[in-house]
Amino acid sequence: MTRSMRPAADRAREPDRLGHMSTTSDSAVRAYINVHREEFLDDLAAWLRIPSVSADPERAADVRRSAEWLAGRLTATGFPTAEIWETDGAPAVFAEWPSGDPSAPTVLVYGHHDVQPAAREDGWHTDPFEPQTVDGKLYARGAADDKGQVFFHTLGVRAHLAATGRTAPAVNLKLLIEGEEESGSPNFPALIGKHATRLACDAVIVSDTGMWSKDTPTVCTGMRGLTDCQIDLYGPDQDIHSGSFGGAVPNPATEAARLAAALHDEDRRVAIPGFYDDIVELTDSERELFAELPFDEPEWLRTAHSHAALGETGHSTLERIWARPTAEVNGIGGGYQGPGGKTIVPSAAQLKLSFRLVAGQDTAAVQQAVRDWAAARLPDGIRHEITFWGATRPCLTPLDHPALQSVVRAMGRAFGQKIRFTREGGSGPAADLQDVLGAPVLFLGISIPSDGWHAPNEKVELDLLMKGVETAAHLWGDLAENWRVA
Amino acid sequence: MTRSMRPAADRAREPDRLGHMSTTSDSAVRAYINVHREEFLDDLAAWLRIPSVSADPERAADVRRSAEWLAGRLTATGFPTAEIWETDGAPAVFAEWPSGDPSAPTVLVYGHHDVQPAAREDGWHTDPFEPQTVDGKLYARGAADDKGQVFFHTLGVRAHLAATGRTAPAVNLKLLIEGEEESGSPNFPALIGKHATRLACDAVIVSDTGMWSKDTPTVCTGMRGLTDCQIDLYGPDQDIHSGSFGGAVPNPATEAARLAAALHDEDRRVAIPGFYDDIVELTDSERELFAELPFDEPEWLRTAHSHAALGETGHSTLERIWARPTAEVNGIGGGYQGPGGKTIVPSAAQLKLSFRLVAGQDTAAVQQAVRDWAAARLPDGIRHEITFWGATRPCLTPLDHPALQSVVRAMGRAFGQKIRFTREGGSGPAADLQDVLGAPVLFLGISIPSDGWHAPNEKVELDLLMKGVETAAHLWGDLAENWRVA
Repeated sequence: MTRSMRPAADRAREPDRLGHMSTTSDSAVRAYINVHREEFLDDLAAWLRIPSVSADPERAADVRRSAEWLAGRLTATGFPTAEIWETDGAPAVFAEWPSGDPSAPTVLVYGHHDVQPAAREDGWHTDPFEPQTVDGKLYARGAADDKGQVFFHTLGVRAHLAATGRTAPAVNLKLLIEGEEESGSPNFPALIGKHATRLACDAVIVSDTGMWSKDTPTVCTGMRGLTDCQIDLYGPDQDIHSGSFGGAVPNPATEAARLAAALHDEDRRVAIPGFYDDIVELTDSERELFAELPFDEPEWLRTAHSHAALGETGHSTLERIWARPTAEVNGIGGGYQGPGGKTIVPSAAQLKLSFRLVAGQDTAAVQQAVRDWAAARLPDGIRHEITFWGATRPCLTPLDHPALQSVVRAMGRAFGQKIRFTREGGSGPAADLQDVLGAPVLFLGISIPSDGWHAPNEKVELDLLMKGVETAAHLWGDLAENWRVA
Repeated sequence: MTRSMRPAADRAREPDRLGHMSTTSDSAVRAYINVHREEFLDDLAAWLRIPSVSADPERAADVRRSAEWLAGRLTATGFPTAEIWETDGAPAVFAEWPSGDPSAPTVLVYGHHDVQPAAREDGWHTDPFEPQTVDGKLYARGAADDKGQVFFHTLGVRAHLAATGRTAPAVNLKLLIEGEEESGSPNFPALIGKHATRLACDAVIVSDTGMWSKDTPTVCTGMRGLTDCQIDLYGPDQDIHSGSFGGAVPNPATEAARLAAALHDEDRRVAIPGFYDDIVELTDSERELFAELPFDEPEWLRTAHSHAALGETGHSTLERIWARPTAEVNGIGGGYQGPGGKTIVPSAAQLKLSFRLVAGQDTAAVQQAVRDWAAARLPDGIRHEITFWGATRPCLTPLDHPALQSVVRAMGRAFGQKIRFTREGGSGPAADLQDVLGAPVLFLGISIPSDGWHAPNEKVELDLLMKGVETAAHLWGDLAENWRVA
C-alpha cells in the first residue's frame, strides 16, 4: 500500500449512526481495486522477495526485515498503530485501527509473515524469492502461505474505506501477524498471553487457510483439536529368551500392540471410555452440506497416497477427517527391529498416539480418559508411563453465528457464487487465540489445494487473491451492520 | 583318555548272546571311575585350554585344533573310527564303535566342541581358558557347555567295558560332535544330510542340556520347535498428515498392532485358527510330574528378569514354557520412534513373530495358518508380505519309550535318587537330527542352571560330572538289554 492508495470519495448506501456509510457497493469496491491492483501486486512482490524463513537461523535478519517491512506498509495503509512485537524468537507485527464507533465489534485478523524454506534445487521452476506471474498465477514462496493472504487485507480495508467514504474501518480492526508459524509457533502462546488486553476482540479472523477449490468457494467453520502422547511400557528388566520364558511372562511389545489395537472397536470407533462424551455432533444440515461438496474420493485417496478409505462406521470420509474425533498410532516400537529374527521377549516397547478432538471435548478430560484406559488394560508385570506432549483445543463456529454469516455474505458477493462450508481436520495456533482471547475463530482464506503450501512452486491464483481483497472490503461493513456485540 | 584307561577285567552279571556281559554293576563302574578320575580330569582340562570359539574368525585354528584333539582322544579311548568331518565352516568330529552284536541298537551321541567367547575382563575370576578347580567346581569356558558333557562319554564307555568285560560297547555307539553350535549351527543340516547313512541310528542322545538342579536330577523328554517370521505392512505410499487424513485411511502401525493383539485371546491362548490342531496334549501323569518339581516361581521370575507371570489360562508356568505352543512378539516397529511426537499416519510397519511348537504341530501347517490368519485380518488398503526365517520341528519322547526308560534307570543308578522329568522350552539342532535320521531324541545332561552357560565363570560341578560318567557307563548295557529294535 502506498499513500496514493488513500481513499478517494466514493458512493455509500447507508449512513451509520455517526453519519458514515458502512455497507460497500460491489461496483465501488471493484472499481477501487482495479485502480490499485498493480500497486498492490508490486508491493506484495516486494514483500515476497524477503526470504523470511523462520526455521533457518541464518535468515533471522530477513524475518525481522519482513516484520519491519509489513509494519511500514500497515502504517502506509492507514493503521494508526503498527508495532513490532518481540518474542523469544522471531518478531510479530501488531497493528490496530479503531473504528471510532463505540458499538462496533472488534476483529483481530491473524496471519504470519514467515515462510517455509525453499531453494531452486528443490524443484522450483523459478527462483522462490523472485516472484513471477505466469498465466494469472503468482509463483513465490509465501504467495499463498501466508503473505498473499495477509496482504489482501491491506487493499481490502482501503477499498472498504473508499467504497464507504469512511476514514476508519466500520469495525475496530486489529492485525496480529506472527513470525514463527512455520516453526511451530513456539512463542505464540506466551506472546498472546502477554498482550491479551491489547488483543481483546469479539472475533478472530484467521487468514491462513484455504478453500475447497477454485470453483467451489468455501468457508471453514472449525479446526479439530489435538493432544498427543507417548506411552512407554516396561516388562522384563532386559530382553529375555523367548524359548525359556516366552508365553509365561508379560511381553511389553504384545501389550503395546494390545493397547493400540484397543484404541478402536470393530466399527473403528474410538473405544476409550468417555472419549465421545459431550462432543458437538454434526447436525443433519451440516452432514447434508458436506455431502453436497464435489468430493472425488479416488482423487482424495491419491492425495492421501493411500489405497483405501477406512474409518468410523456410519460417517463419510469428509465427516471422518473434519468433524469426528480420532485416535491415531503415530509410532510403535519395541524389541528387535533389525534384519532377520531374534527370539526374545523384549524388555520395553513404546507407543506414540495422537488424538484429534472436536468441539465439546475437553483436552484435559481426554488425557485423563487415556490415562485411565491404559492403566486399566495393562497386566501385572508391565510398568508404564504416559507423557502428553501438548494439547490444542478444537474450535468450531456454528453455521448460524452472525459473524460467520457476515463472512459468508462477503465471500458470496466477491465470488458471485453460493459459499459452502468445510472444516479443517488439522489443528493450529488459532485455537490458542480462541482460548486466550475468549473469542470465536472464523476463517477467511482464498488459497486452494493446488497452491503447493510447503512444496516447490508455491503460488497464488491472482483472481482468487483479488476476490480475497473484495471479501475483506465487504466484510467489515457487513459485520458492523449485522453483528451487534454486547 | 589315555592308553592306561583301557579296560581291565571286571565283573559282569549276565552274558549277552555273544557271551559278553552288558549290564554293569554299580560298584564295578564306580571302582573304575575312581581309578581313572584324575587322568580324566587332566585330559578334560587339556581340552578346555583350547579356546575353540567358533564365533571368532581368529580362533578358527583353535576350533580345528579342538576337533583334532578330540578325535585323537576318541581313538585313544578305543573308538575304531574317529574322523574329522569338514563343513563350510568349522569341522565336526565323528566317531564310531560297533557293538559286534547284529541285534544291538545303534545310538548317536550329539554334542559340540566349540565354545562361547570369553575374556577375563567380562567378569571372570580366573582365566576362562585356564581351568581351575575350586570347592569341587571346575571353572572354564566350555566346562559345562559342552566339552565336559561330551567328555564324560569317553570315561563312561571305558567304565562300561571295564564293568562288563566287553571289548566293544553293548550298543553300536556313534558320536557326532559339531564345531559351530555356538554360532547357530549354520552348516549342521547340510552336514547331517550329507552323512545321513553313516549317522543312521535308532536313537539320538543329546548331551548338551542340563538338569533341574543339583538336588533334583532330571531327564529332559522334549524340546519345543520354532518357526519365526516377519510381517511387513504397507499403507500410504509415504507418511501422511494425521490431521488431514488420519481416521479416514488404514494405518499400517494400527494394523500391525491389531494383528499382534489378535495373536492371543483373552485367556492368552493363541487365537490363530488351527494353531492347536493335532498337538500332543500333556497327560495327567505328566502334569502331575511337572507339579511335583520343586518350582519356586518368585525365584524363576528373578531368572526371567520379570515382574509377574502371565500366560495361557489353565496351565502352570512350567507347562507354559515346556509343553504349550506359544506365539511371541519379538519386535514391532512402525512410524515415528524418535523423541517427542509427530502427527503422522505412517506408511509402513513391521512385526516379528516367533512361534514355539510342540509335538503334533507341523511347522508347514503352522506357517500356512499364520499366513491365512494375517491375510484374513488385514483391511483393504494395507498390503502385506510374510517372510518365514526358518522352522525347527519339536521333538518329544514319550515317558514310556524304552530308550527313555533306560536313560532314567541309568541316571537313577548313578544318582541314587528318583529321576524326574523336564522339557526344554527352547529349540535346537537336535530336532534336525530327529528329522534327518528319523530317530527319537533323548537328552542326557548333568549341567545345572547355576553353571553359567554363555556367562562369565562357567563351571561344571565335579560330582555331577562324575555322575554323568556313571550314567553313560550304565546306559549302553541297559539299552542293549531292554530295547530290542527291529
